[in-house]
Amino acid sequence: MPTIGIFDSGIGGLTVLRALRHVLPSESYNYLGDTARLPYGSKSPETISRYLVQNIDFLKHLGVKALVVACNSASTVLEEDQGLGMPIYGVIRPGARRALATTRTGRIGILGTRATVLSGAYPAAIHALDPKAEVFQQACPLLVPLVEEGWIDDPVTRLVAQRYLACLKEARVDVIVLGCTHYPVVKTLIAELLDESVQLVDSAIAISDMIRADLASGRIKHADEPGRTRVWTTDVGETFQRVGKMILDPFTIDEWNLADIK
Amino acid sequence: MPTIGIFDSGIGGLTVLRALRHVLPSESYNYLGDTARLPYGSKSPETISRYLVQNIDFLKHLGVKALVVACNSASTVLEEDQGLGMPIYGVIRPGARRALATTRTGRIGILGTRATVLSGAYPAAIHALDPKAEVFQQACPLLVPLVEEGWIDDPVTRLVAQRYLACLKEARVDVIVLGCTHYPVVKTLIAELLDESVQLVDSAIAISDMIRADLASGRIKHADEPGRTRVWTTDVGETFQRVGKMILDPFTIDEWNLADIK
Repeated sequence: MPTIGIFDSGIGGLTVLRALRHVLPSESYNYLGDTARLPYGSKSPETISRYLVQNIDFLKHLGVKALVVACNSASTVLEEDQGLGMPIYGVIRPGARRALATTRTGRIGILGTRATVLSGAYPAAIHALDPKAEVFQQACPLLVPLVEEGWIDDPVTRLVAQRYLACLKEARVDVIVLGCTHYPVVKTLIAELLDESVQLVDSAIAISDMIRADLASGRIKHADEPGRTRVWTTDVGETFQRVGKMILDPFTIDEWNLADIK
Repeated sequence: MPTIGIFDSGIGGLTVLRALRHVLPSESYNYLGDTARLPYGSKSPETISRYLVQNIDFLKHLGVKALVVACNSASTVLEEDQGLGMPIYGVIRPGARRALATTRTGRIGILGTRATVLSGAYPAAIHALDPKAEVFQQACPLLVPLVEEGWIDDPVTRLVAQRYLACLKEARVDVIVLGCTHYPVVKTLIAELLDESVQLVDSAIAISDMIRADLASGRIKHADEPGRTRVWTTDVGETFQRVGKMILDPFTIDEWNLADIK
């Protein structure tokens, strides 16, 4: 039975798997976290592209009918359908669309990794839909390691987030895109540092809505048996499993395997 | 002309190259930073071992007479001479030796990555020399990304370091090993948070002293022409070059190349 394939540099993309499980419980999923080579956000487009091709190839051989690149940094180097002849979804366009649907002032903020910000992918995707929107970007390289450490509700994380948010506050944006799948984990803390009128866009929810629409329209074929969830990582590690299970809760993982990608 | 090969997961090991250049200016060096796959400190021994073998193989083909594994996490999985028939130096044993030579109370603290701490390599190396020494370890996963961001003299870094040092202060250690080549970059800030009587051990200096001794004893052959320094990284990146040059200062790099390791 063909599954929905999802990949991320690590376990942050499990926020996307969780959103998909929520709206599409009867689908089966193969999730790949490239934990042996994470993070992607500090690396060059050339290196990220090479990893992307290897990861897509791995998932393809497991039998997939649609592919989700649940990593913003990798989504920035994604080609139209990578020549696979099946739908491939990055997280940039769904996030851009939802930001435009949410903003009232046309002033949009982006939080992302250094790779995502340098790529200019969010401003490009937003301006393709609305050339008049004003986009302000902020790279947040320390949020990923802080989330991976589990310092979620912590004075250090608060201090770091405060510094990252200063420019976007000054720019008076009314929508901020959480442009990295790790950031929804600290969504509450970020919201507390902002004025109540500022809306946060979670790309996990944006992309799951898009895939649900494509299943409804017939672009992707529905599954017709109870869904299974398999998670693959390129490195072993007790931390990944523990934090991964925490992120996915209340959903569970049927199988956790090691993926041999070099 | 055979060179001294040095490798690290990233650019932290340039602190070792700098120390070597200082005491052995007429030697030539090939430095490899595996920047496409860093950091190693959060990864498993199996994955680190695989990367280690590939990196040693790359340096061997450049012509080396001695190899320095300037990465604590990789040093923890280093075999005696990896079957190469040339001296290979990890940073653990020189650091352990110097810590024992420095302590007056026999209470030694270790700051390291999660991989280094979990391996137990420092306590093992110290106890092999002195079974009575008391060793207290603290994993500091956030110091590497903070250094890589260049947040060197920063309130966030101070807050994080303070938290990491609390247990070692409570344990009343009189020596602390900076068990990751990134940490010497924030040595001043760490020293400011400690009592003046606590000594810091910089493994970059410990290992350069050991290699100087082996050149003097004839274990490694001296070079007899002016030294050259070549740096290789597995990923491109303006940040690596900029921060790398800053760490090496006042020494300069003769060539900076991309290493094709997959």
